Amino acid sequence: MIDQRRLPGQLIFVTCTNCSEISDAIRNMTIRGAPAIGVAAAFGLALTAVSTKSHQILELQKELATDAEILSQTRPTAINLNWALRRMMNIVNSQHEDLHSLQNSIVGEANKIAEEDVATNLKMAQYGAKLINDGDTIIHHCNTGSLAAVDWGTALGCIRLAHEQGKHVNVLVDETRPRLQGSRLTAWELEQYGIPYEIIVDGAAGGFLRSRIVSKVMFGADRVAANGDVANKTGTYMLALAAHENHVPVISVFPSTSVDLSISNGDLIPIEERDPGEVLNIEIKGERATPKNAKALNPAFDITPNLYISIMVTEKGLIKPPYSVSLPRIISGSKEEQL
Amino acid sequence: MIDQRRLPGQLIFVTCTNCSEISDAIRNMTIRGAPAIGVAAAFGLALTAVSTKSHQILELQKELATDAEILSQTRPTAINLNWALRRMMNIVNSQHEDLHSLQNSIVGEANKIAEEDVATNLKMAQYGAKLINDGDTIIHHCNTGSLAAVDWGTALGCIRLAHEQGKHVNVLVDETRPRLQGSRLTAWELEQYGIPYEIIVDGAAGGFLRSRIVSKVMFGADRVAANGDVANKTGTYMLALAAHENHVPVISVFPSTSVDLSISNGDLIPIEERDPGEVLNIEIKGERATPKNAKALNPAFDITPNLYISIMVTEKGLIKPPYSVSLPRIISGSKEEQL
Repeated sequence: MIDQRRLPGQLIFVTCTNCSEISDAIRNMTIRGAPAIGVAAAFGLALTAVSTKSHQILELQKELATDAEILSQTRPTAINLNWALRRMMNIVNSQHEDLHSLQNSIVGEANKIAEEDVATNLKMAQYGAKLINDGDTIIHHCNTGSLAAVDWGTALGCIRLAHEQGKHVNVLVDETRPRLQGSRLTAWELEQYGIPYEIIVDGAAGGFLRSRIVSKVMFGADRVAANGDVANKTGTYMLALAAHENHVPVISVFPSTSVDLSISNGDLIPIEERDPGEVLNIEIKGERATPKNAKALNPAFDITPNLYISIMVTEKGLIKPPYSVSLPRIISGSKEEQL
Repeated sequence: MIDQRRLPGQLIFVTCTNCSEISDAIRNMTIRGAPAIGVAAAFGLALTAVSTKSHQILELQKELATDAEILSQTRPTAINLNWALRRMMNIVNSQHEDLHSLQNSIVGEANKIAEEDVATNLKMAQYGAKLINDGDTIIHHCNTGSLAAVDWGTALGCIRLAHEQGKHVNVLVDETRPRLQGSRLTAWELEQYGIPYEIIVDGAAGGFLRSRIVSKVMFGADRVAANGDVANKTGTYMLALAAHENHVPVISVFPSTSVDLSISNGDLIPIEERDPGEVLNIEIKGERATPKNAKALNPAFDITPNLYISIMVTEKGLIKPPYSVSLPRIISGSKEEQL
């Protein structure tokens, strides 16, 4: 995996050789992005399966259950992590002829999850790109590109595909404090794709929205409640609210695996509180910009009420309000929209 | 003056010996804050008056007019700068017996503006502190304290006085990207006063407002239009909007000199566009956090529509909606509210 903490300065690939390294990489955000950490967790279990010292199925199953529990604790908000682990554990706990067959099935499922992620993302990109017009200026929050998934990503995948389709798109990149996923990662990706962009501080989005130069606001989702409330990177709520206030469409793009129908509304979604150091360890010209003993609060996500989401994009099609009706319908997966 | 660019790491006092140094200090934000730069500009002209090589009144008057023009160009949004310069130029252009009397009058007027600023700020603090309750948690944007004025400041002065009155107040300090006036300056001031605080990233304010732990939102103003629209530091608009949405009172504190009745609404207020480097030159652990060729847009202020301001605090009393009625009345100064 790419060490996302070192971009854009350095492009460093990290090799994880066991599940504990994968857990650490998710926890310390070497890898991040709801779809990406789901896939990483699946490979974490695959690593356990191939490197096990167990000689018995039952023993390996126990080992995998322990590792799955550790992985599920790494980050609490994004639901894809638990979705991927559940899917893996279904395979783990199904019938197997022998240890080798169990190992093979686990590695196979992890590879399948990764491959499906690319296909899922491409479908989202195809649905989402239809919403983007030639000449659009889009405010984008956090990073939702290839780095956040196996390829393409979610919201940024739509923008990338629209660009590849020949539409002229300009992106206002929210820097996304505190970890700067926007200015570090999204800006870096947009440069790779040749898509024009400008970085703005998160607080500046409101002024641009009032100025009527913004056509759309786009972001991903870390978890979506049954009523359509969206948990996403801190700052999303104020951005969506300001867009709504200025009649700018707000588009949230996520795989259907980000939907958690077991949670009725966003306020029940657990919000990860991260290290205050992420807020405090900021330097300008080599000098620390906060008092030595300063305290900080650092919720990594916030909840955007469904009212402020104009439309959702999933691999199963576009989802429109009322989400409490459309989300369960599309998640049950009975029928896909036509592309 | 304190070099505000070096805080909180270093407390460095800068001495300006001529008007050109004052202009530079305002432009490069060695000194900042709407009231403070007004006073600094007045002293800029005083320095010109005392150090002039002119021997004739007319010559000095011309020199001062040129310097006033240069000073007025340093920062376009805060109106206090032009207010102070107008007040100084009224003295400059009045009748004077001789050069020496002109010089004395100018120095006297600059000192008077500085002294009045302290008195004005204390009055604002007295009015504003009445709005703060024991146990309040207040989100504060940018820096509006002693550093932004001669003493006390605007919004932070109210919080400081409430604290000195024995009320328990907790402040959530918006870090205020890009220049971090919150985490650098407001946090530093709050530490001096012994007021408990936590720094949050600007984007996190919305989540705290939704969580119902916030009692008030407070900030200053760089210019207030006749209809009550407020130009203030970038990020203010989204903060006020989110507070309004969550029924949290929004309090803007400013001296009456920040009101510009010649401007009918906020969209006519010029917004300073500052160096993109302020957005791009951000480092985490010594590494630059933006791609080498990245571009940025950096509007220093935004406009908060009057609808989202619950109440205004000036040295002349509390101002309530409809502002198009109350602002001209209080600015005309016929009658002060009783403290």
